[in-house]
Parts: sequence; structure tokens; C-alpha cells
Amino acid sequence: MPTFLSENEHGLWMTEDERENLKIDYRIKEIIVEAKSTLQHVMILDSYSFGRMLVLDGAVQTTSLDGHIYNETISHVPLSIHPNPKKVLIIGGGDCGVAKEVCKYSSVEQIDVVEIDPMVVEVCLKHLPEVSGGLADPRVNFIFDDGVNYVQNSPTKYDIVIVDSSDPIGPAEVLIEKSFYRSIFNALEEDGLMVCQSQSPIFHGEVMEQIFERVHDIFPKTKMFTAVVPTYPGGLWSFTLGSKGYVIPNEARMKELDALYVNEQIMASCFSLPEFMNKQLSKYR
Amino acid sequence: MPTFLSENEHGLWMTEDERENLKIDYRIKEIIVEAKSTLQHVMILDSYSFGRMLVLDGAVQTTSLDGHIYNETISHVPLSIHPNPKKVLIIGGGDCGVAKEVCKYSSVEQIDVVEIDPMVVEVCLKHLPEVSGGLADPRVNFIFDDGVNYVQNSPTKYDIVIVDSSDPIGPAEVLIEKSFYRSIFNALEEDGLMVCQSQSPIFHGEVMEQIFERVHDIFPKTKMFTAVVPTYPGGLWSFTLGSKGYVIPNEARMKELDALYVNEQIMASCFSLPEFMNKQLSKYR
Repeated sequence: MPTFLSENEHGLWMTEDERENLKIDYRIKEIIVEAKSTLQHVMILDSYSFGRMLVLDGAVQTTSLDGHIYNETISHVPLSIHPNPKKVLIIGGGDCGVAKEVCKYSSVEQIDVVEIDPMVVEVCLKHLPEVSGGLADPRVNFIFDDGVNYVQNSPTKYDIVIVDSSDPIGPAEVLIEKSFYRSIFNALEEDGLMVCQSQSPIFHGEVMEQIFERVHDIFPKTKMFTAVVPTYPGGLWSFTLGSKGYVIPNEARMKELDALYVNEQIMASCFSLPEFMNKQLSKYR
Repeated sequence: MPTFLSENEHGLWMTEDERENLKIDYRIKEIIVEAKSTLQHVMILDSYSFGRMLVLDGAVQTTSLDGHIYNETISHVPLSIHPNPKKVLIIGGGDCGVAKEVCKYSSVEQIDVVEIDPMVVEVCLKHLPEVSGGLADPRVNFIFDDGVNYVQNSPTKYDIVIVDSSDPIGPAEVLIEKSFYRSIFNALEEDGLMVCQSQSPIFHGEVMEQIFERVHDIFPKTKMFTAVVPTYPGGLWSFTLGSKGYVIPNEARMKELDALYVNEQIMASCFSLPEFMNKQLSKYR
């Protein structure tokens, strides 16, 4: 039996137990891919509750059932804020879900996806079509490199940078360092903006605030928004926007959009934060 | 070892496995209460991730960490919509969290809590203060009765009815029947309104729509709103409002409120639904 999987009288299970105090067991229909890349353990599993899922080192990254919520939120908020986005950089995002959403904007001419692990892109394009959409758009360029390294030496100035990182534990920890946000600032056009996922306000309130504070120290304007991501612990998920200027979404842009989660109302309300988050962030106002 | 609990080398665990395809294991610090009432298995457990939790028949009902999100949402939405609420009926709500929130309104004169199981009230008042607030307000009357039976023969006309039910499986199934909503309609004043929790839009979309349809068939005005409830599957949770008249929250009322989750912005945006929910409910517009 491959790592992270077990079998009992009710069938095959994948146990997510990277958290110390909470374990989640997903009943699995079928193992689609189980492999080791040079960097990590990679699986595509077909689950009963969430459909096909991408699992990296035993942690669920995205699923067919709800991947669009995260991907639409982290994409359409910045893309509807920038009045004329042409060049977009996605750091991470190997499941191709963010790139798929960015492709919906006709103004966009270039989408660079900097993913460290080619195997993630390969298996998601092939076996996770609900998330990746089988992405085949000539504007998308895959760059298989370390995100920190790439952005430090970026040959291009971008209008938007989207940091679609995994949890800031181990190798991804550098993706919440201040020097990384500084590099992103430098890789942006004079009216550019960035967004990053900033963890659960409920379970990782300190990390969330740390990310917000660091972005706030570097960018003239900082805002936080949220979405509900069913497969992430706590459901409520935060995102941080750092901008050199623009911060107001053009909600009307949602009208023409083919989306499952975002719409004009969600775009207008995603910056409405629960009171405990407002209080926590009030010192940065 | 009591039912639903097990021990391994990492400590004591409570496994929530009432769902067929998804199990959640909570690491437990201490068993505070473990008992059988005449109706169900009742536990108060102190967990590492969520603090103290009320567990009925092995299913987590509310926790110290996030109970306020559900309780504030299901209470303050109707209480801020009705211009002068005096009499409020809570069906279920044995953990006392909803009653605690309703007590924050000085206009309210009478709060009747119809809970079927006295033991739930007893253990929550004593051992779950973060949720129940140790509730001791002379306006609150506990009526230990079956909710369906009580509301059918209600001696009082209410301004607001809040249905704080457990999942509509087994004994609670009658709490989503059309005849039940009809009884609530009859127990309401001429300008009264009701709210009920209507399950996860992601995992129980059919039940959610069924509830909405039934309420919509009986009440002149129906609206749906959402909150994020971290300990419920999927995080995103729906609530249905049925009203004889009023449907607009008075956001200003949130200013004077001592709340952790709701505020003016959340009240203004909780009726903003994700696009897949809008589409699903569009036939009832």
C-alpha cells in the first residue's frame, strides 16, 4: 500500500495527518497517480466526497469539487482591480487552476507560471481536468524554477503577481519572507499589484497577520479579503493584496465572466471581514 | 474507553465518522462529560484544535473556538431585520449560544427555548461557558419539549422564530418538513419572520434547496444567507430566512453590539451568494 493510504473493511482511505491535533480521512475510489518526483510525493486520487484531488506529501492541495473557489478568488480579485492587466506572473500554481482563470481576460498577453515541480503540472493537465481545464493557451509559459530565485532576477515587469503557494512550512517558508515580497514589489510595474494566500484566520491567525504586516511594510496599499475553501482547515481562508495604487475591484467585469463562485456581489463583499479579523488588523490602518 | 473515543501513541482521539466518505479525528485533552441521556449520547470534550466541544451521538455540534460564528449569524440577521422584536422562539439551541446572542437586544422581552433534551442545556451551562455564556437572563424560559409539537400548539405569537436544529437526519428530519414551516408561520405575528440553518451548499445542495423551496412556498418573502462554520463539513453554511414582510437588516444595529464575527459589513454582505448558489436558487425568484 502506497504511503498515506490504508485499507479497511469500508474501503481505501487517504489520511491527512500533517496536523498534530486533527486528522482527516478521505474514502478513495481509485488511485489515479502515485509517484515520487525529485521534490515530493505526488498523488492524484479519486475520492468519494471531493472527486479527484491533488495530494502532495500527503496534504490535499486542490480538488475537483471545490478547487474553483480558491482559484477564482485569488485570480479574479486582482484581475478585476487592475484596469488593464497585460503581464501576469503566477508563483506556484502547478495545478494550472489559477492560470486557467487568468486566461479568461482578453487584455492579458502573457502568463508566466513559475512552478518548481514539473510533475505537478504534468499530472494535473492530464488527470485533473476539473481544476486545470486541460489548459492549452498560447499565452501561458511554464517556467520550472524556484519562485524566490525567479522573482529576484525577473527579466519581465509584471502588472500582477499571484502567489499561489502551499502552506508556509518547510520549503515554502521563504515565500512569506519580507525579502520575497520586496522582490515581487521590484518585479511589478509602477502601477502593479500582488496577491498571496495568507492562511486561515482561525487556525493561523499569527501567520496571517505576519504576512499582512510584511506586505503592508512594502506596498503603499494593503487589503485583506476572504473566501471559503471547504478542503482547507477551518473553511475560511484569507488572501492579502499589496498594491502600488489600485485597490477597488471593477465588479462589472464579473458580468461577462464564466465563473462558478465569484460574481458581482461576491466581488463587492469579499473585503468585508469578520469583526475578529478587523480588530486584529486595525493597527495597520 | 467510551464510545467514539480511542487511544493511540499520540494520545486520545474522538472520531467523527457519521459520514460515509469522510472521517475527522480530533485529538482530545480531556473528557469533561460522557453520559447517556434518555435520547442520545452526550459528551463535552476538551480538544486541542477547537477547545471544549459539545458532541452528540458522536457528531460535533458546537465548539469554543468557533461556536460564536454560527450563533451570531443565525441570531443577529433576524434580530437586526425585525424593527422591534419582543418575543423570540428558539427551537433546539440547547447549547444556549443562540439565546445568549438574542439577550443582547434590549427590546426583547421573552425568549423561549424549546429543547428536547434537558441534559444538553445542563452540561452546556455548566461546562461550555464560551458558547453558553453561563446564560442566566430572566427573559429566557426553557421548555423541554419536542419542537414540532410545541410550535403546532404554540400558546404565544412570536416576532421571530429561530430553528437551531441538528442535521435533518433521523429524529431531526421532521424539522425540515413543510408542515413544520407551516406551523411556524402560524405561530408568528403578522409581521414576523423565521430563520433556520439549511445545511452545506456544497455537500447538501439538494437538502438546502428543498428547505428553501418549502419556506418559499409558505412565506411571502424568502432569502438565503451564509456564514463560514469551520467545524461543519465544507465550512460554507447556508441559512434560510422566511418573512411575512421585513427582509432588510438594519446594519447600524451592529454598532452597539458586542460581537466577534458579525459587524456592519458582514451584515451587509451575508446575503451575497456565490454564483453556483444564485444559479441554483434562481428559479424561486
